[in-house]
Amino acid sequence: MKNKLGKQTLLFRQKPRIIGAYSIVGEKEGKGPMAQWFDTILDDDTYGEKTWEKSESKMLKQSLLIALQKSGKNKEDIDTVLSGDLINQLMSSSFMARDLALPFIGLYGACSTMAESLVLGSVLVDGGYAQNILAGASSHYCTAERQFRNPLEHGNQRPPSAQWTATASGAMVVSAKDKGDSVVAMGQEAKEIYVTHATIGKIIDTGIKDVNQMGAAMAPAAVDTIMRHFSDTGKKPDDYDIILTGDLGLIGKEIAVDLLKGANMDVTSVYDDCGAMLFDKNQDTHSGGSGCGCSAAIFAGYVYKQMRTGKIKNALLLSTGALLSTISPQQGESIPGIAHAVAVTTEGGGN
Amino acid sequence: MKNKLGKQTLLFRQKPRIIGAYSIVGEKEGKGPMAQWFDTILDDDTYGEKTWEKSESKMLKQSLLIALQKSGKNKEDIDTVLSGDLINQLMSSSFMARDLALPFIGLYGACSTMAESLVLGSVLVDGGYAQNILAGASSHYCTAERQFRNPLEHGNQRPPSAQWTATASGAMVVSAKDKGDSVVAMGQEAKEIYVTHATIGKIIDTGIKDVNQMGAAMAPAAVDTIMRHFSDTGKKPDDYDIILTGDLGLIGKEIAVDLLKGANMDVTSVYDDCGAMLFDKNQDTHSGGSGCGCSAAIFAGYVYKQMRTGKIKNALLLSTGALLSTISPQQGESIPGIAHAVAVTTEGGGN
Repeated sequence: MKNKLGKQTLLFRQKPRIIGAYSIVGEKEGKGPMAQWFDTILDDDTYGEKTWEKSESKMLKQSLLIALQKSGKNKEDIDTVLSGDLINQLMSSSFMARDLALPFIGLYGACSTMAESLVLGSVLVDGGYAQNILAGASSHYCTAERQFRNPLEHGNQRPPSAQWTATASGAMVVSAKDKGDSVVAMGQEAKEIYVTHATIGKIIDTGIKDVNQMGAAMAPAAVDTIMRHFSDTGKKPDDYDIILTGDLGLIGKEIAVDLLKGANMDVTSVYDDCGAMLFDKNQDTHSGGSGCGCSAAIFAGYVYKQMRTGKIKNALLLSTGALLSTISPQQGESIPGIAHAVAVTTEGGGN
Repeated sequence: MKNKLGKQTLLFRQKPRIIGAYSIVGEKEGKGPMAQWFDTILDDDTYGEKTWEKSESKMLKQSLLIALQKSGKNKEDIDTVLSGDLINQLMSSSFMARDLALPFIGLYGACSTMAESLVLGSVLVDGGYAQNILAGASSHYCTAERQFRNPLEHGNQRPPSAQWTATASGAMVVSAKDKGDSVVAMGQEAKEIYVTHATIGKIIDTGIKDVNQMGAAMAPAAVDTIMRHFSDTGKKPDDYDIILTGDLGLIGKEIAVDLLKGANMDVTSVYDDCGAMLFDKNQDTHSGGSGCGCSAAIFAGYVYKQMRTGKIKNALLLSTGALLSTISPQQGESIPGIAHAVAVTTEGGGN
């Protein structure tokens, strides 16, 4: 296979470019330490809608449309939209895609969706099956609580290991190499961002059954994909300025670091986790953020902007998902974890 | 774009081959007119499991593993598994993928999933990102009724327009061109089956709000994708021996034929629908079959076997999905429909 490295890593020789991105978060997320990096912070998490599901779908639609606008492309230039969310039957994505009226691929990877959509979108562009794709993901605290845990009105207590589903969405436009057009869109100073590799993850399930221990359930999958990425590509952690998982949270992040150390891989100087970054400890979210929107907004906000200005040159982005269902724990099942990785760079656009 | 035709159609120049397939259905499906084409018919829809979800997941896992075995490949040869189902959070697929321990992409397209997984799997193989992929989908009458409608124990009546979610699963192995290996697996007489084109569908929502009118809700999306496929490729209906939607059911099939006639396209001589084919009228399923497994089992059973023996040379397979959620109708929303198409042929393996 000409575009595959090792067992699980895809190689994008045509270097598809991320030419536009947009992030939107809720009120609480907008008071956290990452606030400055998001394009829009809602002052009302209903976003003017009558149901939380419609609020989330509107955030996602907004993300895709403004990412598109920022890319300098038009709707007619988009070949395929790839998107997913946490709501049953992808309600946010399906109704967004109905309104956009573009070819649509629905994805479910729980919180791994942003990387999953970027991986497949990059494949379509790199392989010459699309000129431009839109990739996005969303989550909303109020839709997720109602669906996965308890309606907010119950006022349930949350254990210290619980994570807080982010009210957030992020989207990116991935485009085939087409010299000249991005200068118009971004100004001459902005760096081009290329997607170079993707590592498709396997499900790892270490037997954790506590649904309030998502970070612990997903950390081994993140570690497996990180290790596989390095063994497939021959790269080392310090080839990246940042390795970002999303969203193991504070507890899962520590577990991931420990597991990697046990495998003789020290990533501490470049490693962080979107769930750990999103909220401040005094915001009372316990183990940090989660949800498809968490890594989506941090990739499309923080990482994208830091790469555009040259502050980050090489990044490895992993979205992590807990692939349990609302009824699988009741049937005695443990929590399957998965992580997909995408490598992006501002260097080597020459070839 | 070198591998794109018109607005929505992908062109697979490397002609990825379908080298193995397997189908499994429940007891009722095994008494219908398509029974002879399925590899396995269950005599007990629990499949020996304690919950319906685990029964469905076991059917899906079995499908993928036996399709793999029939292809002559080993688990180690598979680069990526692409799969989806109707259960919330893709419970059948996630637990199947956990047991397979292979790189996994989860898809949600409601009943359009089999085509969705074949499209993306063919892209990975055609683009050189995978040597072999496994694509599959499943559904189960008892999991779907509990989740989308009412627990079976309620004994609810069903309106004449309702469809019967198939207890069924199908899977296929798509492989890069590698002359010689399929002869071993299939015997010299078997025809090679190539995937040549895919048309990624847009969501079409004509405002239907009756959740017992899924066929009517999906028919315009199927028609849109069929029309788009022909306009993108320049082909005509009689370039195909069979055009198969799945699963509009008896009512949706008639609507699709009418809409196509209205657009001056007569497909009647080659057209059928998996939902309309699966059950006999005297089986009391009303408008026919539905569910991801319906088109999956008919593609992987009937179509695959008829192509292997040369009875069908060119087929256009469309899986159709109704992308409503369990709560979207309660929020006043109509039903978004989608259809993805895959063109397969036994001819033209020469290039």
